[in-house]
Amino acid sequence: MDELTSQASRRQVLGGGLTGAGLLASPGIALAAGGDAAKLAKAVAAGHDAAVQRLRNWIALPSIAAENRNYPAGPEYMKQLALDAGFQHAEVVPTSGKPGVFATLDAGAKRTVGLYFMYDVKQYVPEEWDNPPLEGRIIDKPGFGKVITARGAVNQKGPESAMLAALHAFKAAGLKLPVNLVLVAEGEEEIGSPHFRELVTAPQVMAAVKKCEGVMIPSADQNEAGGVEISLGAKGIIELELVASGAKWGRGPLKDVHSSLKAMIDSPVWRLVQALQTLVSADGNTVTIEGWYDNVRPLSVREKALIADGASKSSQAELMKAYGVQHWIDDLPFVQALERLASQPTVNIEGLVAGYTGPGGKTVLPGKATAKIDCRLVPDMTRAEATAKLRAHLDKHGFKDVEANVTGGYDPTEVAENSRLIRAAIATYKRGGASVSINPRQPGSWPGAVFTAAPVSIPAGSFGLGYGTGAHAPNEFYVLESSNPKIAGYDQAALGFADFLYQMAAVS
Amino acid sequence: MDELTSQASRRQVLGGGLTGAGLLASPGIALAAGGDAAKLAKAVAAGHDAAVQRLRNWIALPSIAAENRNYPAGPEYMKQLALDAGFQHAEVVPTSGKPGVFATLDAGAKRTVGLYFMYDVKQYVPEEWDNPPLEGRIIDKPGFGKVITARGAVNQKGPESAMLAALHAFKAAGLKLPVNLVLVAEGEEEIGSPHFRELVTAPQVMAAVKKCEGVMIPSADQNEAGGVEISLGAKGIIELELVASGAKWGRGPLKDVHSSLKAMIDSPVWRLVQALQTLVSADGNTVTIEGWYDNVRPLSVREKALIADGASKSSQAELMKAYGVQHWIDDLPFVQALERLASQPTVNIEGLVAGYTGPGGKTVLPGKATAKIDCRLVPDMTRAEATAKLRAHLDKHGFKDVEANVTGGYDPTEVAENSRLIRAAIATYKRGGASVSINPRQPGSWPGAVFTAAPVSIPAGSFGLGYGTGAHAPNEFYVLESSNPKIAGYDQAALGFADFLYQMAAVS
Repeated sequence: MDELTSQASRRQVLGGGLTGAGLLASPGIALAAGGDAAKLAKAVAAGHDAAVQRLRNWIALPSIAAENRNYPAGPEYMKQLALDAGFQHAEVVPTSGKPGVFATLDAGAKRTVGLYFMYDVKQYVPEEWDNPPLEGRIIDKPGFGKVITARGAVNQKGPESAMLAALHAFKAAGLKLPVNLVLVAEGEEEIGSPHFRELVTAPQVMAAVKKCEGVMIPSADQNEAGGVEISLGAKGIIELELVASGAKWGRGPLKDVHSSLKAMIDSPVWRLVQALQTLVSADGNTVTIEGWYDNVRPLSVREKALIADGASKSSQAELMKAYGVQHWIDDLPFVQALERLASQPTVNIEGLVAGYTGPGGKTVLPGKATAKIDCRLVPDMTRAEATAKLRAHLDKHGFKDVEANVTGGYDPTEVAENSRLIRAAIATYKRGGASVSINPRQPGSWPGAVFTAAPVSIPAGSFGLGYGTGAHAPNEFYVLESSNPKIAGYDQAALGFADFLYQMAAVS
Repeated sequence: MDELTSQASRRQVLGGGLTGAGLLASPGIALAAGGDAAKLAKAVAAGHDAAVQRLRNWIALPSIAAENRNYPAGPEYMKQLALDAGFQHAEVVPTSGKPGVFATLDAGAKRTVGLYFMYDVKQYVPEEWDNPPLEGRIIDKPGFGKVITARGAVNQKGPESAMLAALHAFKAAGLKLPVNLVLVAEGEEEIGSPHFRELVTAPQVMAAVKKCEGVMIPSADQNEAGGVEISLGAKGIIELELVASGAKWGRGPLKDVHSSLKAMIDSPVWRLVQALQTLVSADGNTVTIEGWYDNVRPLSVREKALIADGASKSSQAELMKAYGVQHWIDDLPFVQALERLASQPTVNIEGLVAGYTGPGGKTVLPGKATAKIDCRLVPDMTRAEATAKLRAHLDKHGFKDVEANVTGGYDPTEVAENSRLIRAAIATYKRGGASVSINPRQPGSWPGAVFTAAPVSIPAGSFGLGYGTGAHAPNEFYVLESSNPKIAGYDQAALGFADFLYQMAAVS
């Protein structure tokens, strides 16, 4: 998950310094349903090996949309995982892109909770890993305990499988779920969820999702100190490629030609550079697209207070070290930098590709140049608005030929602090002994707006005890058996998910 | 060769429309040495199969400096090729980079001629080729005849091996060479000849080279119509990488971090974009580096006349089609575009590399961004001057942190129209029936200045009947048996090299 990735590393050093004991220090768990707690804990422990093996099997089948890898095997597998965990109905739902999976579990309960899964994983480069990324090796990680290291370990199969392990435990213990469940799983999260809205608004899916009190993606949300940060929303995003080419420009070559010809032929690469530099200020930090900030809603007093509270509990020095930076933008003090992180939209260059990209040089004048861009959006910006403004800006500045090929994105997500979803999450964390801080808005993005905005309009967010890191990076891992009493292992994470369901049933 | 690459494609459509018959249409060749002609022709024909096999064996051993491939095997092989062809002395000459090869052939003649070889070849991507690039398959090419297709076929092993085939024929026919020979071969031509000056100015090499009337690189210089363009010089070049990084800048991240952090962390990619856009005008065509044009020498009346003559013999429409362009820079008319090509220095972006460059997107804020640049230089610019001006420009505009890592380059080359080298080449071509046009300056580059400038100061240029194309590209080829009577095949090219040596001995 794009948001979690960002958060995962940030939470390592941000977040609460308070620690608790309850859930995590004790072998059992104080579940809302009294005596059911012991039965569930026993069933989770008994099912541990099977659950971990289930996770490893899933890891061995990586669905990667950018590489068109393991479709339809991935969604079929996801469907079967749901059926095995007790969903009575599960189906693969075709979209214009990769299929989604929709499943329902009717427990005869009063309330219904939505689960959002991603079954895809990020690309990886095996050579960069210390262990084979699809094996799911279980290794000792000093300071953490036994961890599983694999692509998808924490982003997102590990926590999702712990959620499924909780459902298996309900079955094994003969316990009824306190809520009904609706599962929506997508296979394009890592390419920006281009067809997720299509999936969620499919008639049978939307009918089910609209009944939910809220929707949650299982995550590993503890930081290294055991604390948890709850987000009341996330930035939106547009991912796109800006492409300058001789073909579209009508100047410069159609394909790469010899570089000496630059003396008589225009260059699409210089064209791209010129187009790019109109998008931001000279320091690269203020977006100069006309009207970009028109709908940027200033932080509220409550949001600023939450940010200040978060800053007071974290170490600027450690954060700077983790990112390898010596200064925030504009040399801002820490709190203001965090306010900027929460409140400001961005235009970022993820990658540049033109001409010869290998070792050394090659004397070509490229026929085409591409900048991979992501723009982060804050309320009340929308993806449609920002996309249109970018296009209008390019046109106005004479770059009608420069393509802006949007590959994915979504609107900002917002969840009310007093929603049942947030209150149940806070209650569960506190019962588990994890300190909680509240972040008004994640700087990263996830397609939560598909749920939180019309026509679905239900709260959405991540939840999960447990720890992992390395999403989108080599040596990604997820803690299975924690050596830190403040951090949940796999079974405790599963019990935390169970408790969350009880809390969703219980909160007023 | 960088210059030949450019020329090879340009010559396909530029160049003379006149055609001749003599050398090419007849089975023999009117060599300067009377009766020797028949003997040589016979020896060349008898040695054809062995010579082609020698070429194929050489092709199978590609030395590629950018990939550190086949060193020292490549120079050792080059040395043996020289000894086999009759050089009495040959040695591998170490440099700070890849070794060179130096060889001498004392024929007891009055004059000495230098041969410049490159034993390295350009990188290649086998998947892009119709035939395996190291096999040297001989195929039928409609309109051309039997050709050898391989990496290095025309750039430069094919023509070089034809020169060696001529020397083998002298041996086989028991004929004395009309001139003494000095061979200097380098293995880093395709990375910009970073140590070529070091090679040529090694004491034993320079002592030998300074005795030469001129130095020639064997080439396939005919265009599709059979005409030849002789160049009186070539542009110089600097190849370099401009690198912006968090490490050098002191802002932004040390390595790639999550892209959402753009809201609080500076971007080295935007830094690079900003630095780049200071280098050229808004249209990308005029260099804005301070003082860049200070030493640009205007074209002389003679140079303009030569360009106009060349333009009159070529087709603008065909040239535009070959390059895939609809307009020259500034919508210049053809002759002015060619004048610009000959007279103007450039700053070209060969490639851009930053962050994620694979398919789709990846939400990173890169810690580093690189632009691969080549600058073409005209007389009286020098590489040292241009490099210093680029650095000064970056510093002045506040980009002291942006690295300009020069990987290679050389000064412009100039050769007098009335030098023996040029006169012998023109005489040989005319005897061979090939129409000749004169180009005052190639737009590409080669390290000829190492020869033409102090301390060596001898004329230098390419020479060769024959045809080939695809240098630096897939499906490179060189004609072995020509189906076009106006274009030399392999044996005729070898005889042309032999005749050139006679002409070098004969011209006053």
